[in-house]
Amino acid sequence: MAPPNQSSPHRVVVVGGGFGGLQACLKLARLPVEVTLVDRRNFHLFQPLAYQVATGAVSPAEICYPLRRIFRRRRNVRVVLAEVVGFDLAARRVALHDVALGTAPEALEYDTLIVSGGSQYSYFGHDEWQEYAAELKSLEGALTIRRRILEAFEAAELEPDPERQAELLTFVVVGAGPTGVEMAGQIAEIARDTRNEFRVIDTWQAKVLLVEAGERVLAAFPKRLSAKAEKSLGSLGVTSLTNHMVTGIDAEGVTIKSGEGEEKVPAGTVIWAAGVLAASVASKLAEAAGSEQDKVDRLLVEPDLTLPGYPDVLAIGDMVQVKGGDPLPGVAPVAMQMGRYAARSVRSKLRGGTSGPFKYKDKGNLATLGRARAIAELPPGIKVSGFLAWALWLGIHLWYLVGFQNRVLVFTRWGFSFLTHGRGTRLITGEQNMP
Amino acid sequence: MAPPNQSSPHRVVVVGGGFGGLQACLKLARLPVEVTLVDRRNFHLFQPLAYQVATGAVSPAEICYPLRRIFRRRRNVRVVLAEVVGFDLAARRVALHDVALGTAPEALEYDTLIVSGGSQYSYFGHDEWQEYAAELKSLEGALTIRRRILEAFEAAELEPDPERQAELLTFVVVGAGPTGVEMAGQIAEIARDTRNEFRVIDTWQAKVLLVEAGERVLAAFPKRLSAKAEKSLGSLGVTSLTNHMVTGIDAEGVTIKSGEGEEKVPAGTVIWAAGVLAASVASKLAEAAGSEQDKVDRLLVEPDLTLPGYPDVLAIGDMVQVKGGDPLPGVAPVAMQMGRYAARSVRSKLRGGTSGPFKYKDKGNLATLGRARAIAELPPGIKVSGFLAWALWLGIHLWYLVGFQNRVLVFTRWGFSFLTHGRGTRLITGEQNMP
Repeated sequence: MAPPNQSSPHRVVVVGGGFGGLQACLKLARLPVEVTLVDRRNFHLFQPLAYQVATGAVSPAEICYPLRRIFRRRRNVRVVLAEVVGFDLAARRVALHDVALGTAPEALEYDTLIVSGGSQYSYFGHDEWQEYAAELKSLEGALTIRRRILEAFEAAELEPDPERQAELLTFVVVGAGPTGVEMAGQIAEIARDTRNEFRVIDTWQAKVLLVEAGERVLAAFPKRLSAKAEKSLGSLGVTSLTNHMVTGIDAEGVTIKSGEGEEKVPAGTVIWAAGVLAASVASKLAEAAGSEQDKVDRLLVEPDLTLPGYPDVLAIGDMVQVKGGDPLPGVAPVAMQMGRYAARSVRSKLRGGTSGPFKYKDKGNLATLGRARAIAELPPGIKVSGFLAWALWLGIHLWYLVGFQNRVLVFTRWGFSFLTHGRGTRLITGEQNMP
Repeated sequence: MAPPNQSSPHRVVVVGGGFGGLQACLKLARLPVEVTLVDRRNFHLFQPLAYQVATGAVSPAEICYPLRRIFRRRRNVRVVLAEVVGFDLAARRVALHDVALGTAPEALEYDTLIVSGGSQYSYFGHDEWQEYAAELKSLEGALTIRRRILEAFEAAELEPDPERQAELLTFVVVGAGPTGVEMAGQIAEIARDTRNEFRVIDTWQAKVLLVEAGERVLAAFPKRLSAKAEKSLGSLGVTSLTNHMVTGIDAEGVTIKSGEGEEKVPAGTVIWAAGVLAASVASKLAEAAGSEQDKVDRLLVEPDLTLPGYPDVLAIGDMVQVKGGDPLPGVAPVAMQMGRYAARSVRSKLRGGTSGPFKYKDKGNLATLGRARAIAELPPGIKVSGFLAWALWLGIHLWYLVGFQNRVLVFTRWGFSFLTHGRGTRLITGEQNMP
């Protein structure tokens, strides 16, 4: 590798320690550059398993890893716990807000900026729904959902009115993408597996409704696998309502619109797994650069992932789309490949070269459907379902989990759950209705 | 075993699923009685390891176990998630508040009542201190402390003023009982083990002060072991301030009074591990029964643990003292032995007999002092310290942890921590200072 051209090393600021930012930093750490990773959380969250926190299958710390620990031996990487409040692209500066202290530390200066803010759930302009329908993007959202699911069963056990009891035992999941499908399947499994823990209610009477505006569940998969998934969900006790749209959510439940009109469905728990929006940092960057965003706030970037007019600013992951390119799914492999690409771009720049366009290598698509069942579409058009797909799902998720300890712990939890039908982390924590 | 004398089975209501209540229920489950266990949390917390949650060593779910799951195969035990709001001892009724729903379910009727509410931290009449000095009795308190410790290091890393930086890196633990000592030792270890994770601060400069009003640390142990503990703490980097009293706590730090006068010590984090009070349920019960409480609100009970004048009401655990008996320490073994005694009392009653007085069998006393160091006093006056005491501590804590899965998980965490000097659960979660 060529030595750096400058007397002081090239400074790279990476915003966001999710899949994209983490991969970028790991690769950048091997270059003669100074890396600063900014995140408002002090850990990397393995988001694909966040729904398992919500269902009491794993503990938060088992799918998270402290960012500082990842980079402890990489002396050229500095981790800063802060929220990005703005960009000054002309002065090449990132303005911060210190999350721990609540003050504004000095702005960070960069030679190359890589922004990887990810995405957040969008309530389609109905932000008032969020209070009643928690989301699964953040650890706190997952813990809120866990508390609500468990409290619904507890409340039903003490409810004397059978009608109200049935309402408390109605769970509505909005959106039948992988997260919604996995969530609905797991709630049905909780109901089935905890029957012997209650003395008044029959948890098998719980209703799990999966509401999807589109015409099939898991629309990103081939039709044949979607159909298999819907059948699997049915056998678990999940009612899939495709071509149904949620038009209202309040403390009593949801309003669902279908070809047959609108219906109010009382429900004790509503979970939001529908639309996503680019993270708010995308809009801050767009504002600073005067660049375009699509209708879900994603930045439109050049084929080399730079912002138009700003060759030293790369934006990656869920919060971008390549201008004129094929739309890419908002999944971890896209963000990881973009992160590694961004680091290679920096290496090319240090050597005085340029980068070809980013190319996504599709490695397939996986979704689990509960105990020993999953569907998978592998790149050369191979479709797999059932136990084999499930084993694949387990292996891949364990492999990509950060930290060897976390792999051992999650494997232990999954092993116990499989053998005992138990979920070890079913704790009701956080704010409670104390008298 | 004799069949029950009544046509309908004897009804036992147990309040509290801590060490005492849990042991009572486990033993009662084998009798021809109907047991209702009331707790406001849906899990049993293994409180002796709560401080390890606060230091990021283990995850909450690894030291907790859902109460319903414990009793799933014991059909005569019913678990009710509710807060006890009052007792009507004449009508033999317990009034509840439904924690999940926020409503008041029907009162529970009992033939025998066993109350095991435990204890809570007392701020010696200074409830305003709680905001700045979190406690370790609840899971939420432990998570608050975890967040504050980790945020103090993060804030120091971004703080340009060296004086303020040193203040942020000052940790004050109030109270040098086993919890305070273990907490102080672990904070010192975090500082030592995370040195390579920070780029600006030197975590070895962190100051850990252990403030104790009494004349030595771990006063429940023999003098020789106290002295060893203080030496061990010193070598870890903890400054023990015995004969020092905290007279004030606010957002800036603590005020400490000693023979040399009062001094204001600025500190980023203050942890409360000093006095305890009986749980508030003890006062509710005292009010209903017109019974006496001692100066820390503990109920004074008869030698058979019944309330004076109420032979069908037993009170056990940290929240009681036997009238005229030797004072018993507020530790898990006392509560567990009292719980089993209470169940045996019910069995005697069913058989028409009575119970002799409760006798505590002291099995010794243990405290850990960080990596591979602990002190132990075993019953026949044997004093052990160092690695052997530490191995004993590990074994006993793993043994008494509820749930085989939790034992495997905690053992895994401890193994990794020992080998890598890492703490896997160092996540900053909960409310943050977002802009």
